[in-house]
Amino acid sequence: MTQVGDLKVITFYDFASTKESTKAWNPNCWKTRYSLNYKGLPYKTIWLEYPDVEPTLKAAGIAPTSTKPDGSPMYTIPAIEDPNTGTAIAESFVIAQYLDKTYPDKPTLIPAGTKALQSAFANVSFVHVAPILQFAYLIMIENVLNPKSRGYFCEARKNDILRGVSIEDAYPRGERAKEEWGKVKAGFETIANWMNKEDGRFVMGDTVSFADFVVGGWVQMAKKTWDEDSQEWKDISTWNGGRWPRLLEDLEKYASIA
Amino acid sequence: MTQVGDLKVITFYDFASTKESTKAWNPNCWKTRYSLNYKGLPYKTIWLEYPDVEPTLKAAGIAPTSTKPDGSPMYTIPAIEDPNTGTAIAESFVIAQYLDKTYPDKPTLIPAGTKALQSAFANVSFVHVAPILQFAYLIMIENVLNPKSRGYFCEARKNDILRGVSIEDAYPRGERAKEEWGKVKAGFETIANWMNKEDGRFVMGDTVSFADFVVGGWVQMAKKTWDEDSQEWKDISTWNGGRWPRLLEDLEKYASIA
Repeated sequence: MTQVGDLKVITFYDFASTKESTKAWNPNCWKTRYSLNYKGLPYKTIWLEYPDVEPTLKAAGIAPTSTKPDGSPMYTIPAIEDPNTGTAIAESFVIAQYLDKTYPDKPTLIPAGTKALQSAFANVSFVHVAPILQFAYLIMIENVLNPKSRGYFCEARKNDILRGVSIEDAYPRGERAKEEWGKVKAGFETIANWMNKEDGRFVMGDTVSFADFVVGGWVQMAKKTWDEDSQEWKDISTWNGGRWPRLLEDLEKYASIA
Repeated sequence: MTQVGDLKVITFYDFASTKESTKAWNPNCWKTRYSLNYKGLPYKTIWLEYPDVEPTLKAAGIAPTSTKPDGSPMYTIPAIEDPNTGTAIAESFVIAQYLDKTYPDKPTLIPAGTKALQSAFANVSFVHVAPILQFAYLIMIENVLNPKSRGYFCEARKNDILRGVSIEDAYPRGERAKEEWGKVKAGFETIANWMNKEDGRFVMGDTVSFADFVVGGWVQMAKKTWDEDSQEWKDISTWNGGRWPRLLEDLEKYASIA
């Protein structure tokens, strides 16, 4: 077992992808990568294909986080195995709480008293930015995911987020595309309005917290999913005075991929 | 101009209602009532009928807070006029920020660094609890609002929240009622899950903050809208281990109606 300083190396599970430029594309896994880096903990990423998530997590003794539409247990990543404590858990907010509790001398992800607020923030960011997913999924199966993951991903998203509609059919086209992309813009604008510039660069002002990793995760997803010269990325990177790529810059020192 | 101690009395605008038992029924106005009481500021309520809101606020020099579906300015309450500073403003979160800034020696509504989180919390609580409105509106026009307000209220809600459907038609009946009431229950449960019991009675643990007034406002609305022996109130008051009426008890010392 590898050791860095006093600590053994944590195993971190993220999703695999086709190439270097789309590596680390999943917004939820970014929340945990940012968390591990922010706390300065040693970790190593294992890149999983979708069909391998369930058997890998089961073998590691990591509990499912939710239930599939058919009622069977749903295993999700991000997940970590921490050999320092023997803990193996999934779900980015659960992981963040565990890391704060286990490593209280490292920088804090969820400042005292803000747990419910941080949790609500993560939830509402999803509500507002979620319209982006119907656009992103098609690009993901075309450019981001390996063949081994594509079928699983198409089936899973059709059955959960897209409520019975295929990724292909859910992709907004024509007038609907304009309308739905307008919702994505409005969603980012809502978040921008919460984070007034005069209060600082981060959700809590000058203090970095888990909430920034939630927003940063969404922006990372957009940047990895679309090409840099795509209209989608050009739009997102200019919205709200260019604050979204600027957020990634501000979080850059916690963005290394280990 | 009345004066209490060193401070002149703030004017607070809330909505009128038919009788004592439905008095102070509006969830947004509760956020400001709780805020004023929590800070211990002297105030006096002016109870307005819906058609009187716009002319009253215009006369007081209070700016509109949003835009009606037809593009014209929308004047909303809660609103306050503070003779101590000559400030006249609307919208509960704006008012809370103003009160914290103007009266920093009084208890804090929005603890340092939590502005964006508190704002997001208010927003997401609305998203989750909003399915209750389609049930509540019909009871409001029958039992809570005076005749002078009813027509305005029906027209306004049809044109904004209910997106073209009348209050009468929007009221869920039969199987749909079960399904939609299930969403209300799920919404309260989501909020309950953010506020783990082991962390304290309030959103921020043992510290009261604006977020509690958001949740408390919703519960007050439910309690005032439905009779105490209605199935609706019985349901809400037993959900999540009875925590919603308990929250009102915990906030009782900030709930006086002046």
